[in-house]
Amino acid sequence: MIEVRILGSSAGGGFPQWNCTCTNCSRLRAGTLHGKPRSQAQVAVGLGGDRWCLLNASPDLRFQIEATADLQPQAKADDEIRSSPIAAVVLTSGDLDNVLGLLTLREFQPLEIYATRSIRQIITSENTFFRMLQRVNPQAAWHDMKPGEAFELGFSQESVARCELVPLTGEYPEYVSQETRATLSPEEAVVALKVEVVSSGRRMIYCPALPGISDDLKAQFEACDLLLLDGTFWSDDELTRIALSQRTSRDMGHLPISGPRGSLEVLSKIQRPKKAYIHINNTNPILDEESAEFMSLTAAGWGVAEDGMQFSL
Amino acid sequence: MIEVRILGSSAGGGFPQWNCTCTNCSRLRAGTLHGKPRSQAQVAVGLGGDRWCLLNASPDLRFQIEATADLQPQAKADDEIRSSPIAAVVLTSGDLDNVLGLLTLREFQPLEIYATRSIRQIITSENTFFRMLQRVNPQAAWHDMKPGEAFELGFSQESVARCELVPLTGEYPEYVSQETRATLSPEEAVVALKVEVVSSGRRMIYCPALPGISDDLKAQFEACDLLLLDGTFWSDDELTRIALSQRTSRDMGHLPISGPRGSLEVLSKIQRPKKAYIHINNTNPILDEESAEFMSLTAAGWGVAEDGMQFSL
Repeated sequence: MIEVRILGSSAGGGFPQWNCTCTNCSRLRAGTLHGKPRSQAQVAVGLGGDRWCLLNASPDLRFQIEATADLQPQAKADDEIRSSPIAAVVLTSGDLDNVLGLLTLREFQPLEIYATRSIRQIITSENTFFRMLQRVNPQAAWHDMKPGEAFELGFSQESVARCELVPLTGEYPEYVSQETRATLSPEEAVVALKVEVVSSGRRMIYCPALPGISDDLKAQFEACDLLLLDGTFWSDDELTRIALSQRTSRDMGHLPISGPRGSLEVLSKIQRPKKAYIHINNTNPILDEESAEFMSLTAAGWGVAEDGMQFSL
Repeated sequence: MIEVRILGSSAGGGFPQWNCTCTNCSRLRAGTLHGKPRSQAQVAVGLGGDRWCLLNASPDLRFQIEATADLQPQAKADDEIRSSPIAAVVLTSGDLDNVLGLLTLREFQPLEIYATRSIRQIITSENTFFRMLQRVNPQAAWHDMKPGEAFELGFSQESVARCELVPLTGEYPEYVSQETRATLSPEEAVVALKVEVVSSGRRMIYCPALPGISDDLKAQFEACDLLLLDGTFWSDDELTRIALSQRTSRDMGHLPISGPRGSLEVLSKIQRPKKAYIHINNTNPILDEESAEFMSLTAAGWGVAEDGMQFSL
């Protein structure tokens, strides 16, 4: 069995967001929202033997670790003063809200980092800050993830996890120059992760950015036991309507939850997995637990991820 | 009058630090330390008219803003959904714990950033992540700080602040390559900041990294009203003694508080300013308020900065 912990459940910027006075952020700060603050999306998977793997590394990681006793170092009898149960990180994209937390994990600590070759390149080759993860040996060890090549993580027989990427059709972050972008594989920009417990065959899919749903992807969703899915926006025009962006939800690589061909409709027949929306933007009405949108999700069998939530696989 | 808020008071890594089981971190987590958790060093200066200037930008900034109502955006009558009272940031070095928070301030918000030309270069020219601060116009506007050239910040007559850098003899962060280092001015690596209220002449000096104290610097300290000083390490061998580093406090650009020619001794005759140690490492015994070290500081007229502390100038 492996444990899945939701350490953070909001989209980039968090909820509330530092410079936002949308209805949700204002009501949350005023204490009038029936809803909860959320830190930036972060999942941890327990691998047994007190070792954990992080799915992405959010900018809020320092606070997320201090809120989760199992992720804190245990004082040992010997003289080793620095240690961590966090053994590995797997990245699904190069977005800042998925990778900045790697720089939190910089204090000379060994760490296995799994990412596509392209994501590793745009992070480490073009940002000297990441040299802080290469000051001693062992420290950060990067591994290239490739479609169809699974890798195993785990420290006790019951908790060995087989991880594999699921390629999606997303785009590279805006900080990547046109020149660099031309050298990168399009299918390595944004991926979902499949994590399977080897002993039981039970599996989860972590998909915090979902540009669209192919038939094959839908079949993979149906075949898993836990689906944590992109819940960034409720509607395609969520930001354009309040003039916060000229781009729709789909333009930004996030299939909206509602509307024609939204994820709720497309996945309405999915039966097997326990399913929850995660990576929820501060403008999303489902953050208000008294909203019709929140209730419609509950009625359709979807959960809404919140910080501190736990699952077992 | 301007207000000075301590939003964070620890050295890089925070207290407790994610991978540390030193006596302080272990006792804090166990609830047996007579002391307080601290986020990474961050100061905000109130400039009147609800506008604030940050001294450095810590990785913990999202949480520090949410803990400080004055730094949160106010909902306005018009349709402007994004805004912030944070108007400017002044940087004292390129250390990650001083600059990563800039990337928190990335949501299309106008921001004036003051730094030496060399610090701007090692941050922005060598880290593509910072393009996220240049997506719209106006967004981040960088200004070169030079020794002897003051600049003014402020939005109400009583609160105009004149800022000036005080060059120190520090080194560039370890992420800067030898080739780049050779092209940079040594005196632009680490600075202290002098902030003077123009209407009253009252001034503070913010000096979170203090490599050493020249006679001139000592005279500047004596002439200010508030001194927030490098309190990273209590003793020069603080990390070498517990085998956490092969470098002494002085090797790392931090004059220790105690010992011969430590800052406590060198500044023992300083009378005029209110003075407090800040940027306190998790290993520092002054974090324990029952320690002899903490009490000796209090007896010598020094405060120990903690998150939430306030001063007026």
